[in-house]
Amino acid sequence: MNRVEYRRRILEANDAQASVLRQRFADGRVLVVDVVSSPGSGKTTLLEATARTLPRALRLGCVVGDIATEMDADRLRAAGMPSHQIVTGGACHLDARLVSDGIEAASFDTPDESLPLDVLFLENVGNLVCPASYDLGEDEKVALLSVTEGHDKPFKYPAIFARAGITLFTKTDLLPHVDFDVDCAREQVLALNPGATVLEVSVKEGKGLDAWCALLQYKLDEKRRLKAIA
Amino acid sequence: MNRVEYRRRILEANDAQASVLRQRFADGRVLVVDVVSSPGSGKTTLLEATARTLPRALRLGCVVGDIATEMDADRLRAAGMPSHQIVTGGACHLDARLVSDGIEAASFDTPDESLPLDVLFLENVGNLVCPASYDLGEDEKVALLSVTEGHDKPFKYPAIFARAGITLFTKTDLLPHVDFDVDCAREQVLALNPGATVLEVSVKEGKGLDAWCALLQYKLDEKRRLKAIA
Repeated sequence: MNRVEYRRRILEANDAQASVLRQRFADGRVLVVDVVSSPGSGKTTLLEATARTLPRALRLGCVVGDIATEMDADRLRAAGMPSHQIVTGGACHLDARLVSDGIEAASFDTPDESLPLDVLFLENVGNLVCPASYDLGEDEKVALLSVTEGHDKPFKYPAIFARAGITLFTKTDLLPHVDFDVDCAREQVLALNPGATVLEVSVKEGKGLDAWCALLQYKLDEKRRLKAIA
Repeated sequence: MNRVEYRRRILEANDAQASVLRQRFADGRVLVVDVVSSPGSGKTTLLEATARTLPRALRLGCVVGDIATEMDADRLRAAGMPSHQIVTGGACHLDARLVSDGIEAASFDTPDESLPLDVLFLENVGNLVCPASYDLGEDEKVALLSVTEGHDKPFKYPAIFARAGITLFTKTDLLPHVDFDVDCAREQVLALNPGATVLEVSVKEGKGLDAWCALLQYKLDEKRRLKAIA
C-alpha cells in the first residue's frame, strides 16, 4: 500500500468516527468548536478570556490536545472552564478517536451519552498544517493567526483557512511593532473562503472579545433553531 | 499493518535515504543546516539576514519547503542566496527524498554529484512537530522560537528542541511587549538537550546575527577539519 492510499484510508476511518461524534453532538445540542493555530498564536489565552466573557449561564467545556504537558488544561480549569487534557505523544493533531476518548474520560461526560454542555471547545495541537485534514465532528473550525506570524500565512497554509468558518487575527496589540498588513491577510482568507468571518482580537487589550463571544452565542442559537426545525 | 508499524517503515525508509544524502554532503564538504520552527517564527527573515552577514566568499544555497507558494525562495534569491522551492502540497515536513529531488532540480547542482556550496540551508515547512522526526542528512538541526510564541513551548514541543543542536530565540526586539521569560525558556531547552547552544536574535535590530554567523562558520570549519583527519 503506498502513502497516498494509506493516508486515504486513515482519513476515511477518521471521517466515519467523526460522523458518530457529530450525531452525538447534535443529540446533545452542544456547539462544538475546533480551535486550530500554530504554536503560540494564543489558543489557550483566547479560551481563558472566552470563559470570562461568555455569560456564566452557559456550560462550557474543553478537550485540549498537546504533544506533551498538561499545562493548558490546568490554565483553562483555573479560568473556570472544565477541561480534559489529551497528551498525544507523537501525534501532531487531534483525530476523532482521540476526541471521543477524551470526552469519555472527561468529568463533564454523563452515563446517558449526552453532553451536559452548551459549548465544547476542542483546542487542537499547535500545528497549522495537519489538523486541517481531520474532521472532529465539530460545528466550526476556528483558525487563529497571530499578527506576529506575518500576513503571508493564509496563502502559505491554505487548507486550514479554506476550511475554517471563522478566522481570528490575534495579538493585535502588537500591530504597532510588527509588519502585518491586516487588509492583505483578510483578503487572502476571504479568497480562500469567501464565506469566512474574520475578526481582530487582542486579549491583552480586551478588544474583539465581545464580537467573538457574540458570534459563538449566535452559532449556538442557530444550531438549536435548526435542530428544533429538523 | 497498524499505524505504528506503518510509521516505523516510513521513518526507516527516510533514514536510509538520509544516509545517502549525508554521505554526499560529506563528500561535498558542505555544511547542511535544517532550519525548523512554527509558521511565522522568522526562518526566511533569518536566512535573508544570514546571506547579508556571512562573508561573501562563502557559497550559500537553500532548499525551502512550503505547503504552497514560492514566496520564500523568491525572497531568498532577492537576498542573494540561490534557492530552490519545493512545494510539498499536503506534506507537512521535508523528508530526505524531497530534499534529494530538490537538490537535483536546483541550479546549484553539478553533474558530478558534488555540491559546489559551503553552506546549504534546508528551510523546513513551518511546523514545530513533524519535522523533528525526519533526518535530512543534515549536520545541524536549528530550532527557532519566536519570543511571541511564549516561553512554555520547549516543554510542549520537546522533540525538536531535544534534537536541535542550536536553538535561536527570535524577534527579541518584541521582548518589551510580550510575556516571555528568556531564562525559563533557556532552562527548558537545556533540560531537553544539555549540549544545545542557545542564542538570542533580532534581525530587526541586527542583534545576535554576528554570533549566529560565527557559529555557522565554526561548524563549517569543524566539519572540514574532521573530514581532513578521517
